[in-house]
Amino acid sequence: MQTQAQDFRQRRQRLAQLYPPPVLIRSGGPARRNPPQAYPFRASSHFLYFAGWNHPHLTVLLTEGRATLFYDQPGVEESIWDGPGPDLDELRAAYGFDEIRPGSEIPDRQVLDPQAPDDLLEAVIQLRLRHDAAARSQLEQAVDMTVRAHFQAMRATRPERREFQILATLLVSVTQEGGSTSFSPIVSRRGEILHNPLYDGTLQRGDLLLVDFGAENREGWAGDLTRTFPVRTTFKPRQAEIYEVVLNAQKAALRECRPGREYREVHRAACLAMTEGLVQLGLLRGDPAELVERGAHALFFPHGIGHLLGLDVHDMEDLGDRAGYAPGRSRSTQFGLQSLRLDRPLEADMAVTVEPGFYWIPQLLENPERLAPFRDCLDLQTIEAYREVRGIRIEDNVLLQEEGARNLSAALPKELQEIEIVVNS
Amino acid sequence: MQTQAQDFRQRRQRLAQLYPPPVLIRSGGPARRNPPQAYPFRASSHFLYFAGWNHPHLTVLLTEGRATLFYDQPGVEESIWDGPGPDLDELRAAYGFDEIRPGSEIPDRQVLDPQAPDDLLEAVIQLRLRHDAAARSQLEQAVDMTVRAHFQAMRATRPERREFQILATLLVSVTQEGGSTSFSPIVSRRGEILHNPLYDGTLQRGDLLLVDFGAENREGWAGDLTRTFPVRTTFKPRQAEIYEVVLNAQKAALRECRPGREYREVHRAACLAMTEGLVQLGLLRGDPAELVERGAHALFFPHGIGHLLGLDVHDMEDLGDRAGYAPGRSRSTQFGLQSLRLDRPLEADMAVTVEPGFYWIPQLLENPERLAPFRDCLDLQTIEAYREVRGIRIEDNVLLQEEGARNLSAALPKELQEIEIVVNS
Repeated sequence: MQTQAQDFRQRRQRLAQLYPPPVLIRSGGPARRNPPQAYPFRASSHFLYFAGWNHPHLTVLLTEGRATLFYDQPGVEESIWDGPGPDLDELRAAYGFDEIRPGSEIPDRQVLDPQAPDDLLEAVIQLRLRHDAAARSQLEQAVDMTVRAHFQAMRATRPERREFQILATLLVSVTQEGGSTSFSPIVSRRGEILHNPLYDGTLQRGDLLLVDFGAENREGWAGDLTRTFPVRTTFKPRQAEIYEVVLNAQKAALRECRPGREYREVHRAACLAMTEGLVQLGLLRGDPAELVERGAHALFFPHGIGHLLGLDVHDMEDLGDRAGYAPGRSRSTQFGLQSLRLDRPLEADMAVTVEPGFYWIPQLLENPERLAPFRDCLDLQTIEAYREVRGIRIEDNVLLQEEGARNLSAALPKELQEIEIVVNS
Repeated sequence: MQTQAQDFRQRRQRLAQLYPPPVLIRSGGPARRNPPQAYPFRASSHFLYFAGWNHPHLTVLLTEGRATLFYDQPGVEESIWDGPGPDLDELRAAYGFDEIRPGSEIPDRQVLDPQAPDDLLEAVIQLRLRHDAAARSQLEQAVDMTVRAHFQAMRATRPERREFQILATLLVSVTQEGGSTSFSPIVSRRGEILHNPLYDGTLQRGDLLLVDFGAENREGWAGDLTRTFPVRTTFKPRQAEIYEVVLNAQKAALRECRPGREYREVHRAACLAMTEGLVQLGLLRGDPAELVERGAHALFFPHGIGHLLGLDVHDMEDLGDRAGYAPGRSRSTQFGLQSLRLDRPLEADMAVTVEPGFYWIPQLLENPERLAPFRDCLDLQTIEAYREVRGIRIEDNVLLQEEGARNLSAALPKELQEIEIVVNS
């Protein structure tokens, strides 16, 4: 279901209630690579949220909930290259613009950008943080599209294929549905490189392939799922052990996802469950709660449990930590916790990712300085034995509800929802 | 065949002969969309040409043909996210760097950018204008990859499919081979919108589909081909007539492609052949040469016959018209000719596109002001009858050689080299 004119109107009216003065929102221009070449245009998420039309160099003025779009139909020269402009009546009807005026009439008003006043930014965050019915429907579509792409990637995975061939199946899946990607995908047999931007690797039997991929649907909403699965199709015993640890950590985190809980408790639940698992396997020694308190788990799980999800995959991070961190809160200085992107109480209609991971990162696990504070609780010989696991992450997208939460990836085919752990022993 | 260290060394030495002082070249950073999200990184073409490594935030210093790369291995924090740095010896060997120094030692030297002194820019243009053996091999690879993608798109085209489904076949083809796109593709049943960025249309029997698509190969070199073909598989009589006119115009232009000829004569040959065809079909009246002189053809063919091709699809247009226009030359003010991107004598080892087109653009052909100067030579009734043709472009990539020229698209399967004109009458 598409977002309707009345949905955009309602968002503007709600903003006017929270922040009465007039506000200008700009769609922005295309990003460029080696000018004059432009990437496909994608309007700023604030603009898409309140005004919907994915078109460059637009400005909309919101005044008491009314929307004036400033737009000039292309002149002859411009329209020869870019085509004729749209029908203005259709434009008004589609996005609920109250008026369309020439660009020369844009007044001098407060612009919504990262430098805007606190109360304006806070009002926008309050709206975009809790997704209305139209936004929830869009998120579902984006996650469904993401699911179908992952399914194709999993089917295409086999020994001797290159990572970019798996990437291709993801891209074709979302493009065929009229979508695109919500961020640069990670498709890697070296899952321990957290932001690996390369797709050069050749898959080998016994590898795990980590796929962190999100679709962006036609209205610009993001999905973001990670699956890690064997090439192909059985786990090695130690891979299976760690996979279960990560899966248990994710389940523990998902159980904490409900309105009123702090998101950092979701993070902590994952850390604790993972640490319990690593203690059981003998990589760590000691009391799990104490180990988490000291940050020992972060040697294996250095990132945060997730982030806000919406029109941006890291929703509203154009505003820094302002959306992710509740007013008055700021990042921890502890390694691991400092990478938590979200520290707020969860509320109904928020959407978040839940994505614990285990990574065998040599720069941490072979680094005397990083290991020093934890000498008493590490079994280095056992840790070494798990090197072949490399990286495992499992990521779902969760919509908070009045009662509990809904895993948006529940539409996944069963084999993707929970990868069957068949061990090749 | 990959570009070798000795190829990069030779380019640097040739630059030092043309411009002796030291020069800094930067790879640049990733373009961003809704910060903090980045597009996949692609180094500046000048950097790729002289230094080869597609990696962000690098600087190379060229001194008397020697290359010093300034590069800092990632620290622990950075390498946790982005992985470990490369082996420096391998790096030296792959790209022929003479030295690798810390980033803190970058000296204050002339930077190669669009504001650099004339003699530096002219030296770089002279090198990149005439492709060395390594560059020619790369261009061939990029065009071959482009050809295979077009072939898949053609096979996938049928009534009721959406344009984005055809786009998907193009993307999957190049991605599966480890490449990407050299520019935002055009895949449209409305070929008359020259820069159509949308892929929303539904293909209908009787449409022509215009596909303007280029691969970028692994080293960053660009292909750029256009084919226009029926959905599916027969032309309507008037589409076929105009297709033949455009094809004849392209053949006439290709015949002019040889060292010593002016590229604007290539353009003119296409304009003349197209005008002859339109006179024969009765859309235009009068002497073709005179009509071209007056610019009447530009009502149907408003753009230039093509552009330089290399590491950029519009090669070196980051320097404006400096590479495209020979020193002392500048753009015409005549409609049509003003859009010619290249006005130089052709030389061996230059690569150019040859891409005439016919477009039924209402903003021109229904515009009394634009038609007024040509009232005496237009048959508006006949023109109206060809409205259904919309847009046809045929584009090949040509490498100039000592004797004549080589059409790099000659590797095309026969059905793509020359689309069989079967008329549904």
